[in-house]
Parts: sequence; C-alpha cells; structure tokens
Amino acid sequence: MSTNPEAGEITHRNPNLKNLNVDVLYHFDLTTEMDFKAMFGDVKYVCMGGSADRAREFALKAARQMNLPITDENLKPIGKTERYTIYKVGPIIFAAHGIGMPSISIMLHELTKALEYAQASDFKYIRVGTSGGLGVAPGTVVVTEEALNDDLRPYFEFSVLGHKRRWETKADIPLMNAILKAGEGFPMVRGKTFTANGFYDEQARMDGALDPDFTVEQRRAYFDALRADGVRNIEMEAAYLLGFCTEAGIPAAVVCAAILNRLKGDQVTSTSEELASYSDNPEQVVLNMIFHELAKDGDVWRFGEDLNQ
Amino acid sequence: MSTNPEAGEITHRNPNLKNLNVDVLYHFDLTTEMDFKAMFGDVKYVCMGGSADRAREFALKAARQMNLPITDENLKPIGKTERYTIYKVGPIIFAAHGIGMPSISIMLHELTKALEYAQASDFKYIRVGTSGGLGVAPGTVVVTEEALNDDLRPYFEFSVLGHKRRWETKADIPLMNAILKAGEGFPMVRGKTFTANGFYDEQARMDGALDPDFTVEQRRAYFDALRADGVRNIEMEAAYLLGFCTEAGIPAAVVCAAILNRLKGDQVTSTSEELASYSDNPEQVVLNMIFHELAKDGDVWRFGEDLNQ
Repeated sequence: MSTNPEAGEITHRNPNLKNLNVDVLYHFDLTTEMDFKAMFGDVKYVCMGGSADRAREFALKAARQMNLPITDENLKPIGKTERYTIYKVGPIIFAAHGIGMPSISIMLHELTKALEYAQASDFKYIRVGTSGGLGVAPGTVVVTEEALNDDLRPYFEFSVLGHKRRWETKADIPLMNAILKAGEGFPMVRGKTFTANGFYDEQARMDGALDPDFTVEQRRAYFDALRADGVRNIEMEAAYLLGFCTEAGIPAAVVCAAILNRLKGDQVTSTSEELASYSDNPEQVVLNMIFHELAKDGDVWRFGEDLNQ
Repeated sequence: MSTNPEAGEITHRNPNLKNLNVDVLYHFDLTTEMDFKAMFGDVKYVCMGGSADRAREFALKAARQMNLPITDENLKPIGKTERYTIYKVGPIIFAAHGIGMPSISIMLHELTKALEYAQASDFKYIRVGTSGGLGVAPGTVVVTEEALNDDLRPYFEFSVLGHKRRWETKADIPLMNAILKAGEGFPMVRGKTFTANGFYDEQARMDGALDPDFTVEQRRAYFDALRADGVRNIEMEAAYLLGFCTEAGIPAAVVCAAILNRLKGDQVTSTSEELASYSDNPEQVVLNMIFHELAKDGDVWRFGEDLNQ
C-alpha cells in the first residue's frame, strides 16, 4: 500500500486480488481468463456518463476527431451491455455508469480491476455528465472542485459491516486545471457540486410523486445557502467518483453540463436537440484536454484540422 | 391527503401536480400531453427489476402464458430506453429500474405520476430481481418481509433540504401472502432483506478494487448477526421501493432469486443459462400470483394450459 497519492501511485488497492485464480467481473461479463492486457493495456483516460446512448455518441465524436476508422457500423461495446456499456477508442474508454452512486460504484470497482489486471498505467477518470445548474444558464460547463454529500458535507460516507467510512471528495487539481485551461472560450464555471441520492425531493424538486413537504421559500433559502457555500450544480454521482479515486490513487475530475437553472424551475423542458447541444460543451472541453495531453506526450494519434483551436 | 394506507388509499401523494399545466417525465421522455389514460389506464401490476434485457424476457414470457399475440418482433418499449425501459403486456408493466436506490427512485416517481395521471387504480408494485442469498442456495426465491438499511435498521433514511426523513420498509402483507401462496412448491424462503448501497465492500465482499479493510472472521461474525436477525438476502433496491410505496399508499412486495450463497463466496460464477434459470423461479411465482388474482377478478385474459397449476 503506497502512501503517496500525490504522485498518482496506487494507494488503497485490494491486496486480495492477487490470490484469485480467476476474477469474474460479473456486471461486465468479462473474466481475467480473457486477454485484458490486449483489451485495456493502453488505456489512459476513462470518460464516463450516465447514459449508454451518450457514451456511444461521445465515442464516435472522439473517433471522428482523431481520424480513426471507427464508425457507427463498426463500433462495438466491450463486454455485455445489460447493465453498463463500455466503448474504447484509441487510449480512451467511454463508459455508461447508470444513475446514482450505487450504480457508478459497481462500474468503478470492475473497471479499475480490469485496468489493473491489464497493467494499464497513469490512467485518469473523468465524469462528463449532465446536472442541474444553480444560478448558471443551461449549456454552461460546470467543473467540480469538490463534491458535497446530501448533508452538504465535503465527504462521501458509507457503511461497511455496519461501520461508517468517509472518503475525501476533492477533484485532482492538475487534472481540473488542465480541463479549465482546455475550456477557455466555452461558457464555464468552477465550483462545488452537490451530489444527491435522488432527482426529486432529494434535489429539492417539488414535482415528484410524493408530497415534498417543504415550501418554495424554504427551498429558496436552501438554494441560497448552497450558492453561498460555492455550489454551482447538483447531480448524482460526483461524490462517489471523487471519493473512490482518492482512495484508489486515480486522478479524477467531474465536468457536467447544466441542463437547466434550478433557481428558475424543476422541469427539464429542453428538446432532445437542446440537451445534446448542452452535452456537446463538456464533451468537447474534455476531448480538447485529452488531445492536448496526448499530443504533448508524443502520442501517435493523428488529429484532424477541426482540432486546431 | 388520506390517512388510511391500510385501505390502499392515496396517502402522501404530491398535491402540487394538479397545478402543472404539462408534466414532463424527463427520464421516460413522456409528457402529460400524451394520452396517458390510453397508455396506462388499465395497469394493475408493475413488475420491476434491474435489467432491461430481463424486463423484456419477463414481458415476453407473460405474453406467451397469457396467449397474447405479443412477440419478440412486435413488443415495443413505451418511452425512451436511454435510462429506463418500460414494456406493457395486458394490465402488467415490466420495467427496468437500473441499479441502486437512487436509480429506482427516479423510476418510481415518474411511473407513479404516469399511473396517477392515467387514473389507473388499485395497482401494485413488485420488484422481481436477483440477490445474494444468506445461507440459502442459488435458485431459491426469497420473499421480503421487511428491508433493512446499511446500518441494519428497519427503515429507509434520506435527506431533503438537509433534514433527515425516514420511511418504513415493510412489505404489504396481503400481497406478500398472495406471493407466498402462489410459490408453494417452489424453493422459497421468507425473511428480511438487507439493502446495500453498493455491491463490493458495502455487501461485505472482499474482491472489490479497494482494500476491504476487514477480515474473513469479522465478515463471518457480521453475516452470523444478519442471519440471526432474520436476513435471508442482500440486494440494492428493496428499502427504497418499500419505503416509497408505504408513503404513496401502493401495495408493494419484493421477490428475488438468490444467485449465489454469500456464506460460501463473493464471486458470481454461474453461467448465463444458470442465472436465467434462477430468475425463472421468482418470475413464475409472481406471474402465477398475478394470473390467479386476475382470474379471480373475472378478468378477460385467456390463459394457456401451462397455467393450470
């Protein structure tokens, strides 16, 4: 167990794994009897979001911009797609983690094991998702400095064998700064992210199926307190991702599109086209950052002219 | 707001909904501008599980047994399938809720609103899923009496505007008893269900990506305590479902297949065929219960001979 997460070294990885003859990554339908090194050995970035459709679009967009011969016809997922979906384009994985922290937790455990078995090195995790903005306009890119849990505390808390554990939920600073630099010219803010365990009452919406049992005034005071604390968006996975990666020694960041301004309402009334255009912004910012880093590392990927920005 | 949940009346439903001109059920891509009454008005049962593939198989199985002309070719989902998947066969919905309580919560809010707008009445929710058995063999049907949270307490707790709320997590007794009766002859146990917020450390697995930081002996003592408290399986959604339905005044039950015995290991090493056969048991028990109730109600559905058991 290393004690130097700053250097990106493995910190609290599981020492038991070396005693397993075969490890079945049940939710991916992959096992270590497969050639993980060939499948995942060169991975440097994992871009993850909630939806399998979006992961596919994002992967195809990256392939186009990298001038790779990967198309809608020949792009195949890795493993089964019953619960999660994984695509790989060059050294970048595009993955769908489903909704909420329990869902992303399974993907992070199994994907991290896969990359470890594959002896992939120096890889980074970036959540590129959607969120409710707090005082920011739809389409704004919100870059997370730190995630707050549903008690608005800056850690992720969970129970193991009936005992509470806490993980720190700060984004990796060099990765966050690289994303902020790549995003210059985009509508972008940085701030804290509130990670809720639901979409309706848990995010202070008043349009769920159950009586919300709070008033518009109480909600406004709550949002004002969040804003004053530096919160700029609300979503459902950042605290787990950042906590897990702190423990695992993996640099991680969260970059979300705001798809509505929660100070102005609860309902997501944008069209599919508008929603896709909102997601384009964080996706392009992250791709620009990745392409810049890969070019700096002397990577052999050939980029098209549309990247000259 | 009614105060008589025993009678199945609406209890804590949201009074704000009647003030919405249009309600966009964002995650389903459905809006109240559609004819919800035609789409959902006759729904009496919602059978839900984690996987969209399984929901489809389950729907097709029901259609075959009901002698309905619904086939793999013509069965279409209702709404978009990007995040959730909904099929309807006669008065039964088969739906995929994804993994974990935040994920199922969104489906329950939006589906319940849809059924309410559709003026559906006397509908019941049943989770038909998979789980880790605790001292029960793979393939056993575990019927939940009550769900425990990750502190092993018999309630679901969550935060709204920074304040804690608690919901009771008991199954509806008449519905549970009807399921137990329909399951006579199947390998079946009833007991408590531990609902965890993850699959690895949170379910006391030692094969996650991170150092579990507990010993085999501590885990054994924990499982012994769970068994002594009446827990027979571990999964990831029951506490939210039962809590939500208690609040909403909807009879609800949870019927899961055990796909492994956690006292004997962590890994799910069964083949796809074995896993499908394990899921067959709870699915058939629930279908038998539903067909029995529909026949009793004089419903017009015509059932095939294979239901004469």
